[in-house]
This record gives sequence, C-alpha cells and structure tokens, in this order.
Amino acid sequence: MKRVYLDNNATTMLDPEAYEAMLPFFTEKYGNANSLHRFGSETHPAIANAMDAIYAAIGARDADDVIITSCATESNNWVLKGVYVDKILHGDKKRIIISSVEHPAIGASAKFLESLGVEVTRLPVNSEGVVEVSSLIDAMGDDVALVSIMSANNETGMIFPIKELAAVAHEGGALFHTDAVQALGKIPVNVAETNVDFLSFSAHKFHGPKGIGALFIKDSMPLTPLFHGGEHMGGRRSGTLNVPYIVAMGKAIENSTKMLFAEDTHVRRLRDKLEDALLALPDVYVVGDRAKRVPNTILASIKGVEGEAMLWDLNQAGIAASTGSACASVTLESNPILEAIGADKELAHTALRLSLSRFNTEEEIDYAIDKITSAVKRLRSISSSYSYAPANHKSGL
Amino acid sequence: MKRVYLDNNATTMLDPEAYEAMLPFFTEKYGNANSLHRFGSETHPAIANAMDAIYAAIGARDADDVIITSCATESNNWVLKGVYVDKILHGDKKRIIISSVEHPAIGASAKFLESLGVEVTRLPVNSEGVVEVSSLIDAMGDDVALVSIMSANNETGMIFPIKELAAVAHEGGALFHTDAVQALGKIPVNVAETNVDFLSFSAHKFHGPKGIGALFIKDSMPLTPLFHGGEHMGGRRSGTLNVPYIVAMGKAIENSTKMLFAEDTHVRRLRDKLEDALLALPDVYVVGDRAKRVPNTILASIKGVEGEAMLWDLNQAGIAASTGSACASVTLESNPILEAIGADKELAHTALRLSLSRFNTEEEIDYAIDKITSAVKRLRSISSSYSYAPANHKSGL
Repeated sequence: MKRVYLDNNATTMLDPEAYEAMLPFFTEKYGNANSLHRFGSETHPAIANAMDAIYAAIGARDADDVIITSCATESNNWVLKGVYVDKILHGDKKRIIISSVEHPAIGASAKFLESLGVEVTRLPVNSEGVVEVSSLIDAMGDDVALVSIMSANNETGMIFPIKELAAVAHEGGALFHTDAVQALGKIPVNVAETNVDFLSFSAHKFHGPKGIGALFIKDSMPLTPLFHGGEHMGGRRSGTLNVPYIVAMGKAIENSTKMLFAEDTHVRRLRDKLEDALLALPDVYVVGDRAKRVPNTILASIKGVEGEAMLWDLNQAGIAASTGSACASVTLESNPILEAIGADKELAHTALRLSLSRFNTEEEIDYAIDKITSAVKRLRSISSSYSYAPANHKSGL
Repeated sequence: MKRVYLDNNATTMLDPEAYEAMLPFFTEKYGNANSLHRFGSETHPAIANAMDAIYAAIGARDADDVIITSCATESNNWVLKGVYVDKILHGDKKRIIISSVEHPAIGASAKFLESLGVEVTRLPVNSEGVVEVSSLIDAMGDDVALVSIMSANNETGMIFPIKELAAVAHEGGALFHTDAVQALGKIPVNVAETNVDFLSFSAHKFHGPKGIGALFIKDSMPLTPLFHGGEHMGGRRSGTLNVPYIVAMGKAIENSTKMLFAEDTHVRRLRDKLEDALLALPDVYVVGDRAKRVPNTILASIKGVEGEAMLWDLNQAGIAASTGSACASVTLESNPILEAIGADKELAHTALRLSLSRFNTEEEIDYAIDKITSAVKRLRSISSSYSYAPANHKSGL
C-alpha cells in the first residue's frame, strides 16, 4: 500500500544518517557518560560533536548553555516553572505573558502557574494567527517576569516576529523565551541575532528521534531545575544521558542545517503546488500569507468537509495528515487556531493540516493532490452542511 | 582489548532482543502515536504489549497507572513535587520523610522543597546502610504528606523493608513512594504486595535504553503533573511518545522478569565468587550481609587503596567498575554511603563498587579477580597510608 507522509509538524521520519550514527551507542558503546572508565569516556567525543552541531545550528556562543532534555515539552515546562521560582516566588515580578496560540506545553504550564497565583496575560493574534508586536507593547509592564512566544505556529506554520518581540520584552525588564519547535530545521534560527534568553526544541521535528530535545539558556544564566538530582549537565538537568539520541539529534540538526536551502526550494515548491491545487477547489481557505509561513505547512479549511472525515479518506489512501496538533488530536475538538483567529465554529471543524518535509517527492504530492480532490468531492456529496451553489457545480465538485 | 563490564548499577548493556524489537519504530513505523492516521495507529499494538509487560513485571492492576517518563529522575522529581503541590501547598500536610541514602534525584528534590518551606526528615541508616522500620515509626506524624524510601541502595545493593515501611507510612496517613531503580530486574518487585502508592524505575538499569522510565501510580490517583501540556498519557505526562524506547523497555522488562531466576543463581554465584576473592585479601571490608543484598552488588572498602586509583588500574585492564554512584562520580568525592554508615573519612575514599549482570561470564569474573588482586598489590605497594603489618606481608600483599 502506498504511504505518503504529510504530517511532519506532528513528527518526522528519522534521518537515515542520524539512525546509523546512533546505533553503535546501543550496541558496543553502552556506557554511562558520567562513568570514569572507558565505557563512559568513549561516549564523550560523539556527545561533544553533537553539542557542537547544536551550537552551530542555532548560533549559540561559548558562554551559552544548551541543556539536553527529553523533549520541548520538558524544556517549556522548565522555563515557565523555573522562571516562576526565580523571579516571581523568590523575586518581585508577578506576571508572565504568552500568546493565545502557544502549544499546550506552554498553555497548560501557564494555567498551572495561574493556580499558584501568577498572573498570566494571553496575547491575541491577528487574522493570520500571528502575535503583533504592538500587542506585546500594550501588554508589557515592569511586573512581567517572562514573555514566551513561539517562533512558528505548529498548525498554520506562520512565523512570529521573535527578534522584535524579544526586544520589547527586554525593554520592559522581562526575560524572553521562544518555543522554536516548529521553526528549527525549516527556517534559519539564530539565538544571537534574535537575542532570546531561552529557546526550546525537540529533535523529532527535524528528523531526529522522539524523546529528546534541548533548552538553550543565554549566558548560562541560573534557572531553577525541573529535574533535581545528580550532576549530569552540570547539575542543571539530572538524569543519565541518553547518548544514542544525543548523537542522533546532533546528526539530524547538522543535516537539517546543511539542507536548509532545500526547505526554501524543494519543500516550498511542493508545498506551493499542493496549496495551489487546494485553492483551485471552490470554498477552500488557507490560513496566512504563504510568504510569511515556514515553507512546509498548509492549514486549510475546506467548507462542508469535516476534518476527521477527510483524514479518514486520506488514511484509506495511505496519506497521513491531521486536523491540527497531534498533541490534542485524540479529543477531536475543533481546531483551536481557527477559533483563535475568529473563524466560525463550523469552519473550525473543517481544518486540514498538511505538513511536508525534504523527504517528500513530487510524485507523492501529485498523488496527494489527486486523492484530496477526490475526497473533497466525495465528502461534499454526502455533506449535510455543504450547499451546492451553481458556482460549485460548475467546478465539478 | 578485553572489556569486562562490572558497573551495571550505573547502567547496563542493552538487551539484544530489546534492541531488535525497537528498530522498526525508528525506520518504517515512525508515526506520532497520537496521530489518527495509520502511521500513528500502527504503533499502538507494540505500545500496548510493552505496557502489559510492565504491568506484569511489577504486579500492577488494571486500576493502576503506569506513566512513561524519560527516566527515574523525572519520576522521582514528579512524585516529590506533585505531592508537594497536592498535599502541602493545597493541603494540610507540611512534611516529607526520606532516607539519608536516597539517590540525588530524591535528595536534591527534597532540598528544593525545603527551600519552599517544606519540612524534610532524613532517616538515618544502620551499620549496613539500611533504614530500620523503627526509625520511620519514630519519625512519623500526621503532618507527613509523603515517605520516599528506595527499594535497594544503588551503592551497597542492600534491600530495604519496603512493605513494612509502606505500612507505617499509611498508618500515619502518608503516601508512600519507592525509588525501585536498583531493585527491578534484580529481585521480585510487586506493587500490590508491598502496597506502595508510587514506584519509580529507569529502563537502563535492566538492559533497556537510557532515557526512558516510568512512574507507577496506585489506583490512578490524581497527581499534579511535572510536564504540563498535551494529552499524551491521558494528560498526566505530556510529550510525544518515545515509541522505540517504550517498545525496548517492554521487551527488556519482559526478559528481565523471565530471567529473574538467573539473578538468584548465575549472578549471585559469580558475585559471591568475586566477593569471596576480595575478602580473601587482608583489610578488605564489604558493606552489608550478602543475603540481604540484591544479588549483583558488592561495595568494598580496600584499606590503603584510593578508589580512583583502583578504577584507573582496572580501566587499564579493560574492567569497568566505580567508586559509587555514577550520578556523582565526576566530583571524586568520598563515597556518601560509607560516610552515612559512619565509616571514617579515609575508609570512605577507598570504595570500590562492582555490579554484575546476567550477561557477565565466569571467565570474566576470573579475569577480574586476577586483575583486582594485582591492582591491590600494586597500589598498596605505593600507598603512603597502608602500613605493612606482618599479617599483610604473609599474604604476599
């Protein structure tokens, strides 16, 4: 059966070179990196190489820290809860600012902090689902400990003005964090240029393994740990090092950085071709200007077609897509970003997210266009909500 | 070069069957387990099998929860911090009780809670390094939210009376947690029989991969998450599932349970042979009655021989051992358990921990005995602290 994977914002296939690179650390080189003997020390060069690749990929400096975590969810929880302890509980700040379209790892952490008495301001987004710099300017105050805004949205792919937002946060005396999960490997990410204090990412969004990520910490600034314990990672994040995955993440980020041009050429071209085909259908709406999106993402609303019904049809054809974030997919709720940008309830149930990677081929995209077109036709023909206006009839749908 | 791995309490080699079992989830089956399409759903049977193996291995029931985490350090942090929020911050309790020989993941988490105003009682250990039930009885009070005591000590291998300690905690109205990292795979572990509320473990201590573990939660009781976020693991622990490692942990725990008899026969016999050879040397002391230890561990003190010097000699011979916990090994401090049981400072610097696994062979142990004996001889000959009493001369050392 044909298999076409167009759900790369949920997770990606593992880079074959990253896979090969990590295997020896499962078989011969299985030592604990903290051990003093050769089983431990023989892991060190590969770990050092991986860390170098990570530093290079995000433009970090020697004075910075990149702490390996188990995923961006951990990194995100760490930043919010660590800054809470350091700057609110033991400091004179009392508020954090996030956007209304953050990943649940930020949204739910902020809600938890609210239960501890922290004030949380949730910035609205514009009609393209992006936080405008002016709304952060309006919301800032010297009571703000942390501003946390994503680099690119997981559902729409829209890119946020991180450098400008960080500057506003700093001007107001706050720290700035960005969840860069959906940006890294798709567009250039540079912590020095954007001047962020913290940056989170997960390897499995750029063809690394699931279950490993990192938190960038500017100038190695102090931050109360989320994992207290042994001396791993300089005591900042305890837990025996997951050597194979660190090695794989290093190789994956190295290759993704090397292949970044392909995101802007190959991936963008395929995405645009797919998007053009979707927009050629009547009553299809795509969120956000494609020039302002990461090159791999389309969030479409297809009038009269329930998102889950569409996924079912595509799944039957071997095509993987989603209605939005996989992190919330099991509850079959309407797409939250479509709600956030003010789409009506019915439209919010018609979301289809297609997210590509550099491993997709033109032939796969042609196949997907064919199957999506058939699915729209079939599902609209049985839809109780889609009315066949003459304009639609003309198009054959 | 010969390689003999006798540092299994730091980490273990990956079970070859666990390795094979996880590989397809790196290559073909790379979907996000939360995705609705087949790339997601095709991971479900293997995850379900792994969870069944975990349930079976620890005697959990259908009403219980086993939540996958990134390691026991995460599980330990989660229990202490979650119970703090639920029972101290939002409840009427104010104290937790731990032992003075817990792993740093418990010790440092408790210290952090102290900084938030929690009272922490640290139970002493007896001369064998074990918490006595009477000391918990003496320390209990109705202000105690949680008692957290390890199942077996990482350095000595001594087994703690968990069932009795849990009963005392419950009688006093407290919850009971055990860090079972060093017990699981070595001795029978049964959450129903011991009646613990929480139990932590890490796969890499029983021949699973590094970077995955779990927390058992009795009767699925509520516990404020450490990772807030998406709906993974029923919203209890967010983060995209690390499918390959879950599969590997399941296979590793299944095989370790199946092979538990070998711990009590093969491993115990080799350990006792090695221990007898050590004790045949003059001025060698081994901590704790071997019948009360997990079958794989020896913590010896070799008078006049610095632990690090011994490790160096053994490392030159291709033998991996440690002076104690790998989680604290980089600072070259004296062994904390030897300090806790009241050994003098000089003795505490002479610790050598040897920890076996079912993958060790008799030939490896014979080789280790030979090399350890030579190393003791060489190092004592150049020691400034070891005095050659006639008894020692007689033995040829």
